Amino acid sequence: MAKRRIGILTSGGDCPGLNACIRGVAKASYELFDAEIVGIQDGYRGLIQGQWREMERGEFSGILTLGGTILGTARTPYRNMRVIEEDEVNKVEEMKKNYKKMKLDCLVTLGGNGTHKTANLLAQEGLNVIGLPKTIDNDIYGTDVTFGFHTALDIATDVVDRIHTTANSHGRIMVIEIMGNKAGWLTLYAGLAGGADIILLPEVPYQEKYVLEAIRRRQEDGKRFTIIAIAEGAKNAQEGAMKKKEFRASRAEMPFSGVSYRLAHDIENELGCETRVVVPGHIQRGGSPSAYDRVLSTRFGTYAAQLIRDEDYGKTVALRGTQVVANALEDIAGKTKLVPSDSELITAGRMIGVSFGDE
Amino acid sequence: MAKRRIGILTSGGDCPGLNACIRGVAKASYELFDAEIVGIQDGYRGLIQGQWREMERGEFSGILTLGGTILGTARTPYRNMRVIEEDEVNKVEEMKKNYKKMKLDCLVTLGGNGTHKTANLLAQEGLNVIGLPKTIDNDIYGTDVTFGFHTALDIATDVVDRIHTTANSHGRIMVIEIMGNKAGWLTLYAGLAGGADIILLPEVPYQEKYVLEAIRRRQEDGKRFTIIAIAEGAKNAQEGAMKKKEFRASRAEMPFSGVSYRLAHDIENELGCETRVVVPGHIQRGGSPSAYDRVLSTRFGTYAAQLIRDEDYGKTVALRGTQVVANALEDIAGKTKLVPSDSELITAGRMIGVSFGDE
Amino acid sequence: MAKRRIGILTSGGDCPGLNACIRGVAKASYELFDAEIVGIQDGYRGLIQGQWREMERGEFSGILTLGGTILGTARTPYRNMRVIEEDEVNKVEEMKKNYKKMKLDCLVTLGGNGTHKTANLLAQEGLNVIGLPKTIDNDIYGTDVTFGFHTALDIATDVVDRIHTTANSHGRIMVIEIMGNKAGWLTLYAGLAGGADIILLPEVPYQEKYVLEAIRRRQEDGKRFTIIAIAEGAKNAQEGAMKKKEFRASRAEMPFSGVSYRLAHDIENELGCETRVVVPGHIQRGGSPSAYDRVLSTRFGTYAAQLIRDEDYGKTVALRGTQVVANALEDIAGKTKLVPSDSELITAGRMIGVSFGDE
Amino acid sequence: MAKRRIGILTSGGDCPGLNACIRGVAKASYELFDAEIVGIQDGYRGLIQGQWREMERGEFSGILTLGGTILGTARTPYRNMRVIEEDEVNKVEEMKKNYKKMKLDCLVTLGGNGTHKTANLLAQEGLNVIGLPKTIDNDIYGTDVTFGFHTALDIATDVVDRIHTTANSHGRIMVIEIMGNKAGWLTLYAGLAGGADIILLPEVPYQEKYVLEAIRRRQEDGKRFTIIAIAEGAKNAQEGAMKKKEFRASRAEMPFSGVSYRLAHDIENELGCETRVVVPGHIQRGGSPSAYDRVLSTRFGTYAAQLIRDEDYGKTVALRGTQVVANALEDIAGKTKLVPSDSELITAGRMIGVSFGDE
Repeated sequence: MAKRRIGILTSGGDCPGLNACIRGVAKASYELFDAEIVGIQDGYRGLIQGQWREMERGEFSGILTLGGTILGTARTPYRNMRVIEEDEVNKVEEMKKNYKKMKLDCLVTLGGNGTHKTANLLAQEGLNVIGLPKTIDNDIYGTDVTFGFHTALDIATDVVDRIHTTANSHGRIMVIEIMGNKAGWLTLYAGLAGGADIILLPEVPYQEKYVLEAIRRRQEDGKRFTIIAIAEGAKNAQEGAMKKKEFRASRAEMPFSGVSYRLAHDIENELGCETRVVVPGHIQRGGSPSAYDRVLSTRFGTYAAQLIRDEDYGKTVALRGTQVVANALEDIAGKTKLVPSDSELITAGRMIGVSFGDE
Repeated sequence: MAKRRIGILTSGGDCPGLNACIRGVAKASYELFDAEIVGIQDGYRGLIQGQWREMERGEFSGILTLGGTILGTARTPYRNMRVIEEDEVNKVEEMKKNYKKMKLDCLVTLGGNGTHKTANLLAQEGLNVIGLPKTIDNDIYGTDVTFGFHTALDIATDVVDRIHTTANSHGRIMVIEIMGNKAGWLTLYAGLAGGADIILLPEVPYQEKYVLEAIRRRQEDGKRFTIIAIAEGAKNAQEGAMKKKEFRASRAEMPFSGVSYRLAHDIENELGCETRVVVPGHIQRGGSPSAYDRVLSTRFGTYAAQLIRDEDYGKTVALRGTQVVANALEDIAGKTKLVPSDSELITAGRMIGVSFGDE
Repeated sequence: MAKRRIGILTSGGDCPGLNACIRGVAKASYELFDAEIVGIQDGYRGLIQGQWREMERGEFSGILTLGGTILGTARTPYRNMRVIEEDEVNKVEEMKKNYKKMKLDCLVTLGGNGTHKTANLLAQEGLNVIGLPKTIDNDIYGTDVTFGFHTALDIATDVVDRIHTTANSHGRIMVIEIMGNKAGWLTLYAGLAGGADIILLPEVPYQEKYVLEAIRRRQEDGKRFTIIAIAEGAKNAQEGAMKKKEFRASRAEMPFSGVSYRLAHDIENELGCETRVVVPGHIQRGGSPSAYDRVLSTRFGTYAAQLIRDEDYGKTVALRGTQVVANALEDIAGKTKLVPSDSELITAGRMIGVSFGDE
Repeated sequence: MAKRRIGILTSGGDCPGLNACIRGVAKASYELFDAEIVGIQDGYRGLIQGQWREMERGEFSGILTLGGTILGTARTPYRNMRVIEEDEVNKVEEMKKNYKKMKLDCLVTLGGNGTHKTANLLAQEGLNVIGLPKTIDNDIYGTDVTFGFHTALDIATDVVDRIHTTANSHGRIMVIEIMGNKAGWLTLYAGLAGGADIILLPEVPYQEKYVLEAIRRRQEDGKRFTIIAIAEGAKNAQEGAMKKKEFRASRAEMPFSGVSYRLAHDIENELGCETRVVVPGHIQRGGSPSAYDRVLSTRFGTYAAQLIRDEDYGKTVALRGTQVVANALEDIAGKTKLVPSDSELITAGRMIGVSFGDE
């Protein structure tokens, strides 16, 4: 088989498993065909600005367990959508130009929904693109799970576990804000895993009166404390999701949405009980990937190499049941996998007494 | 709806998630119908010998994160198959008698393949039985995953990670024996997650010459060390699986099969390089369940309560894709879910350079 | 020996090791003399308000690894000093009255500096008191280390570790706010353990210009990122420590001092590089105690029982070198063990290139 | 100050904190004087055989959290004492010759008791040597603690914790063999931290009758299980420590002493209760150092650099109380810091009901 020259980039927020996945792509490519691998620095920004270098085989060894990404990442160009709209054609043209300059046979992009949207755009422009579904939010359409989610779940659950002892010892209400702006998967899983009493998700708008009622009910049952797991994008049914800018407390941007502080304040005001907020923030996306994520990332990466071998481009890799499969980029780009409001997970939560603040 | 009286037992080796699952069954039962719950002590042994007590609602709180089982467990009656053959009718009769004596409407059994075999037997005898698939081996037929597996994977992978530093520092061959007599799921996943160089499974008979070759190839590539993950039931293609009794080194039973020591010995003899064996043993099944296992156990437990509500007996709970479903006990009893020799996981392993000792 | 009736309370913020220490006091007391143990609820508040109950031997089993405190805790009465000043005599009188009502031979108080101050007050009023030094801040005078500190160090270091991968992947400045209002022990240790580049402590007033210089120096050396570990009570040499009330961003109290946000804002403004803040907050004091803290708590608790046996009251337990010893309450009450500005730990930090923002 | 050329080697079993300590020596040396650093491969073996290379500043970055040793290690030459005796002069001469060939101003050796013995020998031969006390056994004379011990304690305690759930669920006796041939520090600390019921140490010869009695007493108290933490070098008062060769069960060397199996066998025989053995083995010395060990290693390493700056050779670094100090090599070489049989830790253990098998 002819030589294949593959560009790889990682885009969006960093996420456990990126390096394991890069390693999978690279090792399997070297195994399956005559591969040359080009590392593109800091996501699409590097593709636009032309920052890359050829990598050597040895660079992909020993990175299975390493957190973050050896390629660097950035949120450009989708961070500020308006800028993109203005410059879109140019940015895309730069990316196409650089793709040619690098003499790539294929571009592999590891990222979340924004990354896949751009990947699809590039595919429609005629580039050979393969996507890989990375995000701690687990909200990429068409795959049962994304890599990074399990690790983030472990971390967020450890936070809920630790807060339990403080809540119990002090007889407090604890409000824990968990990452997830649009999708509540991480909050839902970590809330169930940590034994949270109230779980508030973007997909299930809550009313404060129901939250207060749930706390009161626990107090009447003699419980000293209540744990609330709230997604940063949780929606108050009356007020809507909080705007981040409303809540800029200070001169630097905060790593939380404010929704947790507003709720905590109202609970203290209404019920007069000591209420504290915990915002684990970026620790949810850092560190070595969990065992499951290492395996998933490896499977995904090696599958991508097979797609390249077969010149089966315009696809993204996914897990369906126990099988790794491929979806067409155009079928999944621009979509978000949300928690269905009748999800069996929510039903399970209700059956063990969790309140979702909606009734 | 009329009152339902439910007996619960946990059988077989202890496993993370048992208490979380018991809690799910109990809390959802109290929520869904007028439930009375009877805890049966030490698995089927307690059912045979009539050791049980009525439990209170409060006993199911605070056990989500607790390792082991609050009900106790035992390997009877399937531990020694010959004894069962002789006594089978009587044991079954005792169980039926006690089921009636307890005035149960349903018996919920949490366990692995042996447990499900007995559960099916009791269902065929006319008892209302629901099974729940617990095992760190992940080898129950009809479910994508069992609870306990993910936690064991985390532990086994942590072992492989730690051994990496010793192997590298000393320039050694390290042989790590991982639990799994018939099925190699745990060894396969932990081997891939920990970056093992050679993975030996019950499902893929190995030849020592290929193992030695794989080590030599690494040495020629300048690698100081080799990590071998071997299942306790791994099969040497020439000699077959080692018999435990052959390997009783001493007066007390050992917690390992000996297959690892035999292999290590042969490697030292043939290649003259320092080789060490690590047998993590029972720590693979102990401790608090992982976040994923807590959620899975809770989903399984609450689903079982729904089956009871619907009087849909003779079933066991399973995960298929992202959905919890029910399988008929008779469809899965007596079967074992093995790693297919053409498993995509094995293919992924081969593509990143793992040797399975078979070529 | 005559019967001894012992009251135990835990006061101040919850802290890993409290239950292990209570267990040590109780088990050793039962072993050493004819003990009766009275559990006082929620710290001094329970002593003032008369909330207690006699405990049974079995209640002290199985709590070695349990986070938090089975006795509950509260920050009264020293939380609001003015209230204390007004009511002081009465509160003390209530405590003395209840001590008599409970017929105690000795009161054992587990807590930090505030707790010890009150303990000393009660000792001066003629009660038999024994103190036990608990705090994640490690700032109790007269002991090399307090229990809880090692566990908090593990947690805070894990946070710094995880943030490293995000910082590196995104090329960011990360500011991590670690607990410690007066004493910087936790920030200093976690900063060194996590490889922080800049460490800012209450004991070493910093100037922003030196912080900015240290970041610039790293950038000139080609480093993509900088990690700053800052104590919540870190002092800006120009402005002094930030007042919490200045920084009430919102309606509910925040779990951080704001010093981290102010610094992050100034860095972004001055250097134009993406800067993020992480405030792990209460997770630093939650969860199961570390192995070291379990041993230390047990040693401290059993030593307290020996002091009671010997009627050697008015003391607090301490570690000096490898030995557990006793200090007179009056010698340590009202003092705080700060990090000396010429501490060998700071010198070690400087030698490996850490900036303390003071030069 | 004139240039200093420093050789570094790590010797003996690998141990968490070696890289953190190497980093401390190197970074502080570059800071304090004009340093050149030579890495000697695989301990004294590399010094004897002349395997070394000059290292660059960048190689000492990013290794703080890395397990094992970047320099490699080996147990030569002290593993087989007889060989040493025969060859001693020659080996020493080779080391002296290579020291000169490398043009070293100082040799820094990181290791345990064997390493220090050799270091002292070389110092007596006129070389400038600095020792650094590394060992998970914590048995180096003259220091309160060695680096590596705290990490091993965390791992061993995690093992005891996990075994607790199995023991309790199955109602078993569990015998856990913990590393430590001569000194029982690790077993003693992990036993206390994990809540072991019986702790058997090399320093406190045990009699099986007392072990059996302790188990029986627990059974009479209604306890379902017993956890025994036994050091690999634990001494049976009647029979003495087990010889490893007596217990070679098979063709390859086992990573345990056999003392645990013999005891387990006798318990099953005498009491008829299910007894299982767990031998965590090498995992006790692998993986990333704990937070405490990273700080301690860094302090020790930077202190060594100060000794070199001051040309204060023939010393080893130690912790006394809260201070890092230096001991003369000749004062500590050939000695072992054992657990005193009247240790306060043992007393504390007895007071909470632990049996040491000696009464």
